Amino acid sequence: MASRLRTLPRLARLPAWPAAALRRHYASAASAKPLFEGEPEGPTVKTQIPGPESKKAIERLDKVFDTRALNMMVDYTKSKGNYIADPDGNVLLDVYAQIASIPVGYNNPTLLKAATSPEMASTLINRPALGNFPSHSWAEVLETGILKVAPKGLDQVFTGTTGSDANELAYKAAFMWKRQQERGGHHVDFTEHEINSSMVNQAPGAPQLSILSFTSAFHGRLFGSLSTTRSKPIHKLDIPAFDWPRAPFPRCKYPLDEHAAENAAEEQRCLDETERLIKEWHHPPAAVVVEPIQSEGGDNHASPNFFRGLRELTKKHNILFIVDEVQTGVGATGKFWAHEHWGLSSPPDMVTFSKKAQTAGYYYGNTDLRPNKPYRQFNTWMGDPARAILFRAIVQEIERLDLVGNTKRTGEYLYDGLKRLGERFPEEIQNLRGKGQGTFIAWDSPRRDEVLRKAKGEGVNIGGSGERAVRLRPMLIFQEKHADLLLERLEKIFKS
Amino acid sequence: MASRLRTLPRLARLPAWPAAALRRHYASAASAKPLFEGEPEGPTVKTQIPGPESKKAIERLDKVFDTRALNMMVDYTKSKGNYIADPDGNVLLDVYAQIASIPVGYNNPTLLKAATSPEMASTLINRPALGNFPSHSWAEVLETGILKVAPKGLDQVFTGTTGSDANELAYKAAFMWKRQQERGGHHVDFTEHEINSSMVNQAPGAPQLSILSFTSAFHGRLFGSLSTTRSKPIHKLDIPAFDWPRAPFPRCKYPLDEHAAENAAEEQRCLDETERLIKEWHHPPAAVVVEPIQSEGGDNHASPNFFRGLRELTKKHNILFIVDEVQTGVGATGKFWAHEHWGLSSPPDMVTFSKKAQTAGYYYGNTDLRPNKPYRQFNTWMGDPARAILFRAIVQEIERLDLVGNTKRTGEYLYDGLKRLGERFPEEIQNLRGKGQGTFIAWDSPRRDEVLRKAKGEGVNIGGSGERAVRLRPMLIFQEKHADLLLERLEKIFKS
Repeated sequence: MASRLRTLPRLARLPAWPAAALRRHYASAASAKPLFEGEPEGPTVKTQIPGPESKKAIERLDKVFDTRALNMMVDYTKSKGNYIADPDGNVLLDVYAQIASIPVGYNNPTLLKAATSPEMASTLINRPALGNFPSHSWAEVLETGILKVAPKGLDQVFTGTTGSDANELAYKAAFMWKRQQERGGHHVDFTEHEINSSMVNQAPGAPQLSILSFTSAFHGRLFGSLSTTRSKPIHKLDIPAFDWPRAPFPRCKYPLDEHAAENAAEEQRCLDETERLIKEWHHPPAAVVVEPIQSEGGDNHASPNFFRGLRELTKKHNILFIVDEVQTGVGATGKFWAHEHWGLSSPPDMVTFSKKAQTAGYYYGNTDLRPNKPYRQFNTWMGDPARAILFRAIVQEIERLDLVGNTKRTGEYLYDGLKRLGERFPEEIQNLRGKGQGTFIAWDSPRRDEVLRKAKGEGVNIGGSGERAVRLRPMLIFQEKHADLLLERLEKIFKS
Repeated sequence: MASRLRTLPRLARLPAWPAAALRRHYASAASAKPLFEGEPEGPTVKTQIPGPESKKAIERLDKVFDTRALNMMVDYTKSKGNYIADPDGNVLLDVYAQIASIPVGYNNPTLLKAATSPEMASTLINRPALGNFPSHSWAEVLETGILKVAPKGLDQVFTGTTGSDANELAYKAAFMWKRQQERGGHHVDFTEHEINSSMVNQAPGAPQLSILSFTSAFHGRLFGSLSTTRSKPIHKLDIPAFDWPRAPFPRCKYPLDEHAAENAAEEQRCLDETERLIKEWHHPPAAVVVEPIQSEGGDNHASPNFFRGLRELTKKHNILFIVDEVQTGVGATGKFWAHEHWGLSSPPDMVTFSKKAQTAGYYYGNTDLRPNKPYRQFNTWMGDPARAILFRAIVQEIERLDLVGNTKRTGEYLYDGLKRLGERFPEEIQNLRGKGQGTFIAWDSPRRDEVLRKAKGEGVNIGGSGERAVRLRPMLIFQEKHADLLLERLEKIFKS
């Protein structure tokens, strides 16, 4: 496999081929051992989507639950591997995967085994208040699951329930740490003034500190995380927000390596402005939070150099560096954690996770990030051990099948196919990006929403991000044969 | 049963009896049909708590997970019904129940059946992005579970993951609704100024509105919910907060009915101050949020009249009334929802739930609380259907065994026993409260933490709330025989 991949640069110099020819070219690769047994051979489209059964189900659901964001009614019992099924018998290749959160395929047998284990049943029906009453097996669940894949340099975890929750918990840790620094250390107690003012939401007890985030960032939709989210007005309108600083995220040109000099200048501009905001913002930041690839905000990439620059800036100004890997984490970029691509001189202070982990939380390494007293970072459930057990099974499956290696290889194959397709349809595929980032690939499309809609009719479920990006977020079991199918269907849509 | 209970007022006029005599008196009641088969007969204390095995497990866990709030290391596989077990073979009567969140007993067989069903397995391993890709069976799961027990007048639900999350989602709904009112209705679109200002966290797009809460309230620990939490400094210190108003919660005298006139005056004072804040606070409230019984904040009760007053005030000033039933909901107060005790003229606008529901969210009735566009109230997972399926099984168990009736009856029995015990130990049981509120009972104890610690040695796991309250939060399967055990052990502690 590796030797075949090394031939890709040569292929790239050949004239653009039709996708079908590409598919034939890679016939030997496409017949590689399937990573998910018993999947459908390809999509089946029997009706318009939504079909009559889906429409009935939507109508019923709408009486009690807002369905206006509904994309597709699903029959999960009939979905399998990379394929999502609906109640009308339609079966679609799914490269959106529940907004990037299905890791190893629908109805994965390894996960089914974990889900039907006595341990899972006990954990589901005896949900603990983890901070007060952990199970005697909790350490082992963490060590063999969540912590087995901890980013280098981070060996502690605080568990949560969602990506938004994970980020807010990390922000709280940052604020408590920062105020501790300002007070003079771990053992300096709160003043009466701090104690009393905290109860009426005033400084110094409720300090006027901030979290710095970037234009187009998405970090969640709770009040604190939403204050750092800068993706779209529809996410933010009418919700009170903290007066926190927003630095520019680089607007790079793609492919990144072909515009290295221009991009480096743009990144330096953004780093300079970030430093200015750190020094001058009237509510000083306790931390900088950044996504390795801005996902909801439109699939915006920057070079490792930009992120290394953020790491240095945060160190220089004695604030924390939080990497939000909610969407990029768990293997999709060809590394287990996307920030491994950066070659940082020292690890991030905190890394948050959710989505493909099917649970959530943040990793950290420095025990100074444990607040100086218990019950400061605390809540009733502190996550859900049932979901942590599932993540352990996901980790096992990723290791057993080398799925991180798979996303790296399949990603290169897919990127190459899209590049060729883009050469034939330059209006349809603009700013292709995600080279070397596994299957975390996107492009801009002037008629994005139409493409996504037509894709359903062609048997493919695809999502968008930002205003005009088509984002691919296939599962980790997405292989070259699936890439071929996708490329073929895209070609058909572009021709239409 | 009902006729026996009617004799209680007569018993109450008899001289105070020792708990053991009370227990004998109620021998026939205590031998009532058990609500949980195969429970231990009583607690077993074999070692100091924590014992050697627990200590080993704590030491291991502490390497990766903050254990300073750890109360007790638990072996959930050996816990059963009302009894919680630890790795050292200690088995305790549990009247804390994972901070009020275990509904129908550890290892409940009905829940086990639900947890081992094919539906649960499928739901666990195929976690949907509910807003985009709901399952065709989601409507039925809601109708037969979460919505089957919806508070009167509320027939819609938005699902979430935790109590904090549920409250923040409700607050967001309130802000969107309020701004819609201010703009002039559902079809008036956002202005350019709103759109642009929202992206930099400034008004009018990020409006300077607020949520009004009360002294000693607890509504969660995320940034928005924490801004309405006013329980303890340790919950709030060092975390930035919104400048939102805090109204006084009545400081009533207990028993409420014996101080009716004084309490009514205090409640009127609090209502007047609430109205003043609604009218004058510089960031006008979009909603008032209140717990039916303030739980974390010290088990503070008010009369139905106070809550009816809040309902009228919010109507009068055209803002929303959110009832936070995260801790009071799901049967513990002798009603399924505690606000049913109030006899409101119209239902609350939103009711939030979590804990004993083992899932979370908020109910609402008015479809105007669906924001004017999709994707405004939205997130990836929007709860966890696996937990919604579990709640459906909990609802079935509650109905099958009439557990709301049980908490009402057992609560009366327990309250009466505590009242008698308090007459013998007036220093130990002060301000007994929760009469007529099922098993949601508490009292003040000048040596609270010592009592809680000693209780463990006597085989009972009890929690506290506020600065000095002992709070009882038994499960819904807590019966008179358990009450007898508890009373007996308390007596022993008080004598020590």
